[in-house]
Amino acid sequence: MNAGAGAEALGADFEAVGAIGRAAAGGGWSRPGYGAEECRAIDWLGGRARAAGLEVRLDGAGNLIARLDGQGGPAGPAVTMGSHLDTVANGGAFDGVVGVLCALDVLRRQAGARAAGAPALPLALELVCFRDEEGRFGALTGSRAMTGALAPDAALHRRDADGVTLAEAMAGAGLDPGRLGAARRPAGAIAAFLEVHIEQGRILEDAGIPLGLVTAIAGQRRISVRFEGAADHAGAAPMAARRDAFAAAARFADRFREMVIARGGGRARGTIGIVEVAPNLGNVIPAEVRLGLELRDEDEDRLADLARATAALAAEAAAALGAAATVRPRHATPPVAMAAAPRAALAAAARAEGLATMPLLSGAPPDAGILGAVVPAAMLFVPSRGGRSHCPEEWSDRPGIEGAARVLGRAAAALAGGGDG
Amino acid sequence: MNAGAGAEALGADFEAVGAIGRAAAGGGWSRPGYGAEECRAIDWLGGRARAAGLEVRLDGAGNLIARLDGQGGPAGPAVTMGSHLDTVANGGAFDGVVGVLCALDVLRRQAGARAAGAPALPLALELVCFRDEEGRFGALTGSRAMTGALAPDAALHRRDADGVTLAEAMAGAGLDPGRLGAARRPAGAIAAFLEVHIEQGRILEDAGIPLGLVTAIAGQRRISVRFEGAADHAGAAPMAARRDAFAAAARFADRFREMVIARGGGRARGTIGIVEVAPNLGNVIPAEVRLGLELRDEDEDRLADLARATAALAAEAAAALGAAATVRPRHATPPVAMAAAPRAALAAAARAEGLATMPLLSGAPPDAGILGAVVPAAMLFVPSRGGRSHCPEEWSDRPGIEGAARVLGRAAAALAGGGDG
Repeated sequence: MNAGAGAEALGADFEAVGAIGRAAAGGGWSRPGYGAEECRAIDWLGGRARAAGLEVRLDGAGNLIARLDGQGGPAGPAVTMGSHLDTVANGGAFDGVVGVLCALDVLRRQAGARAAGAPALPLALELVCFRDEEGRFGALTGSRAMTGALAPDAALHRRDADGVTLAEAMAGAGLDPGRLGAARRPAGAIAAFLEVHIEQGRILEDAGIPLGLVTAIAGQRRISVRFEGAADHAGAAPMAARRDAFAAAARFADRFREMVIARGGGRARGTIGIVEVAPNLGNVIPAEVRLGLELRDEDEDRLADLARATAALAAEAAAALGAAATVRPRHATPPVAMAAAPRAALAAAARAEGLATMPLLSGAPPDAGILGAVVPAAMLFVPSRGGRSHCPEEWSDRPGIEGAARVLGRAAAALAGGGDG
Repeated sequence: MNAGAGAEALGADFEAVGAIGRAAAGGGWSRPGYGAEECRAIDWLGGRARAAGLEVRLDGAGNLIARLDGQGGPAGPAVTMGSHLDTVANGGAFDGVVGVLCALDVLRRQAGARAAGAPALPLALELVCFRDEEGRFGALTGSRAMTGALAPDAALHRRDADGVTLAEAMAGAGLDPGRLGAARRPAGAIAAFLEVHIEQGRILEDAGIPLGLVTAIAGQRRISVRFEGAADHAGAAPMAARRDAFAAAARFADRFREMVIARGGGRARGTIGIVEVAPNLGNVIPAEVRLGLELRDEDEDRLADLARATAALAAEAAAALGAAATVRPRHATPPVAMAAAPRAALAAAARAEGLATMPLLSGAPPDAGILGAVVPAAMLFVPSRGGRSHCPEEWSDRPGIEGAARVLGRAAAALAGGGDG
């Protein structure tokens, strides 16, 4: 193993991805799923993987799969690693990218060793770059297509915030929407799945520990809440005669936060990230407010309780302000526990590398959460500076990422039946 | 006086204005100040006034002035009547329009009588259609330009919500921005100002009284409140570690409404009409929220108290959520009392027409509020069905409007030194 050369290649990879999809305004990176910038990043990744001697293909969802066969040949089971290259709008340079580039690093080293005469491992090694993890079309489109958790017909009609359907976006990305269902992989194709990801919190940083071993991935409920009041003149309508949709939304939002803290056992997270007010004019009482919110927790029963309490709060706030509330569940992901064998492999690899670990819950639902519902999966977190994520300031230190790549390589090789990659 | 013919002409005028600026989506009418739709409405009005034999001109602000000279000739003082033809986005068919068309009706009848041989009144009669009453560029642009309450250089640089400056919009409307200051009329040019307007509330409707005699016009404070927190991952960041700008804004908004009710003495109005959230994504904690709010009251001291309390609430809410608040006063209009002489003329005219009146406060700041700061002004309200305004459902009955036009005509003629028009 040539750590120096590997670290240099990894550094060059970060520079190359960082040159793709710089946001035109607002800082950071904007590579929406199936958009031109994600396509350029995937194209770049395919070229890099081919240059390393890997077999590269796009599946029906447009996920990139780069493979180094094992002793089972092209049809044999694989230890699969990966993450995503799409970003939220004005996102950072590490979310998703770290997992893809660490996996690329592992496969590049393995391919180099193979070229230098090392024998094939019993299992194949794969890098997967999933499409649209951040949810331009719902959430985790690529990994859900791969595991069969996506109903292709319904998914193809989903629209992004601009009204573009997934089918239209796929066609625009040069993909055949008719092949979305074909992305589902047969049972047994993936023997284990490993993902390196940034923590997106600051528990590791505060503890001074370089690696987090994820125990479980929080489930998520995305809920849309709409308040309907009545537009009226802001100067003329007396306070008591109003049906102010934003007053109802504000009352709800204030109590929602308190409710999540009170009922969430210190673990649950609740966020109102999307707020749309109509007509949104200074001298008109708001007629309609649409809130996009989400709840996350590791416990499915608690998620259900939080969702019920959310609906009750919306009804109460609307009634108090003479408005009407409509609560619509939009998307639900159950909590997923990480599997024992790949977790143990990651723990052993970290010990072999002399890197300390601590157990962590993943609040975000990564691709490993989707894969983990059908194959044994585990995850490794690297620290996020200041816990910042989904913003231009997102930062993880290079030495920490290189350490994670080494641990990932050792664990993948062990799970593939070989030595310590 | 031929009331039948006048009522028919008024009906035709409403139909003609109602055909201009129907909103492309969302219902109602959209004729923003200095936009193409307001220009078409003003063009139509100029044609109608010329056809009635009136002298028509546009002043430096683009306000249309249609005049019937009195015994003082072209330079003599006038009893001026008017309102505006611009609308909020998706507004109604009566706000502003009623005042312009009632004044047109009065001048058309007077011009008809003059053509039939009636002598000129001592004072001139004028119709003014003010530009941009609804505030695309701040508020009441045309009437403020006419009274000198607008600083032309600063005003020309004001931008609308799309970043267009007033200077650009004026040029687009075929007006010379360099002449904005010339709109100011000399002292004594306007002897009295009268405006008919819809109530935009439901006090008249509830009382079953056809006309409101406005006692005073509420002052207004427009204030911008910005909350700055920190963008972060909605799933990963624990509730206690967040600096959620929308949580701060919601806490503020909920308490703002309660504060206006508690300190407003049953008269004040406070409205948060504009809400902008960034980045406004489902899985990102809001980093920044901008609120556009306004306060209205007839009492200047209470307005100042409400503005202070608003700033204190913003600071408190921001501190509670780890965010920062910036409070910026944007625009202030002091309360304006209506003048005794034109109020008495309107009251006498209503009695002569056999129409009951009641005293009312105007919550909205109409053009009469701007004129009333420098010339004797008074206002007449007609009922608004359900109190609805600034929305497609806005409605006032035709017989009530025709009655108001007759009262306006009698009062204007009396103030102009003549009989009961």
